[in-house]
Amino acid sequence: MTKVTATMVKELRERTNLGMMECKTALTEAQGDMDKAIEILRKKGAIKTAGRAGREAAEGCIQSYIHTNGKVGVMIEARSETDFVAKNEEFQAFIRDVCMHIAWANPVALDRDEIPDEVLEREKSIYAEQIKDKPEHVREQILEGKLRDFFKRACLLDQEFVKDSSKSVGDLVTEQAHKFGENIYIKRFVRYEVGDTES
Amino acid sequence: MTKVTATMVKELRERTNLGMMECKTALTEAQGDMDKAIEILRKKGAIKTAGRAGREAAEGCIQSYIHTNGKVGVMIEARSETDFVAKNEEFQAFIRDVCMHIAWANPVALDRDEIPDEVLEREKSIYAEQIKDKPEHVREQILEGKLRDFFKRACLLDQEFVKDSSKSVGDLVTEQAHKFGENIYIKRFVRYEVGDTES
Repeated sequence: MTKVTATMVKELRERTNLGMMECKTALTEAQGDMDKAIEILRKKGAIKTAGRAGREAAEGCIQSYIHTNGKVGVMIEARSETDFVAKNEEFQAFIRDVCMHIAWANPVALDRDEIPDEVLEREKSIYAEQIKDKPEHVREQILEGKLRDFFKRACLLDQEFVKDSSKSVGDLVTEQAHKFGENIYIKRFVRYEVGDTES
Repeated sequence: MTKVTATMVKELRERTNLGMMECKTALTEAQGDMDKAIEILRKKGAIKTAGRAGREAAEGCIQSYIHTNGKVGVMIEARSETDFVAKNEEFQAFIRDVCMHIAWANPVALDRDEIPDEVLEREKSIYAEQIKDKPEHVREQILEGKLRDFFKRACLLDQEFVKDSSKSVGDLVTEQAHKFGENIYIKRFVRYEVGDTES
């Protein structure tokens, strides 16, 4: 069976704007065939906007937010398919909201793929140590739960949105994509805080 | 004789807010002794604000600028010694001007120290090839001139300020430092342009 790599999952996520697990499952089912995976997701109804998947999001906008004390700043590049959406006021307001979220929640990465391997390994080894006395048959499950919590703290798209904790930032991006009927995603972000480069 | 390293020059620049060549010359004269180099610069009158050199600039502000088309954005962390200066309107307006300059002039690095060695070596080898037919005794001089031009294109602090080409951005930072009587410098910057991560 073809190995489903992180790069493949990332590509499918960018093309479909769907969650990591959903994309990974579809790719596994499609044995690594990208187009087949999109077809599977479409059949499942996961891709709600016909024809959206696979269209390149080449337009976009840059937004920033400087916290009122002037000590924290965030800048985002968000992507959309058309300049019409990129310039849409509601879309821009949403991206500004995400900037504000980042200023507050201080994610270390955009998504799970961006967490460096060594950081992930370190986390896993800490959790393994914490649960080493648990019965073996539940360890895997506990480990997965702990990792999920870690991703919810560390990854922007997994974080609970500061203005509405019932949704993740990733959920909100998907909502925007459905609203505008376009492939929309956050390409990158940067967060500066005065003094955070001292070490 | 003690070797004057890039790190030493960088430290002296941060402590004095003076240009690279000035700091390098002083450090060479002082045989690598940081305090002696500061003394030399003070004697020369290069450090005009008594007591400024060596004081840590632990305060600062974050500023950003999004170009009106929303396709280019810049964020800067600027440092000062006191929060009084960091919050000063004129100082903040200056940093915003530098943001705008970066959006326009697209520097690849903050200063010469930040140019990766391999980039510098590549430039040098190109120039060496270009001038290989010149008489040997003028080659060094031409090479230096070409490198100076390269730094003026690539490094923010060496670039001519877009609003006043008679001054470099570094000159303006120094002017601000003298005006406020504080050690002031640009700690870092980031420039996003929609689509510049495709390759």
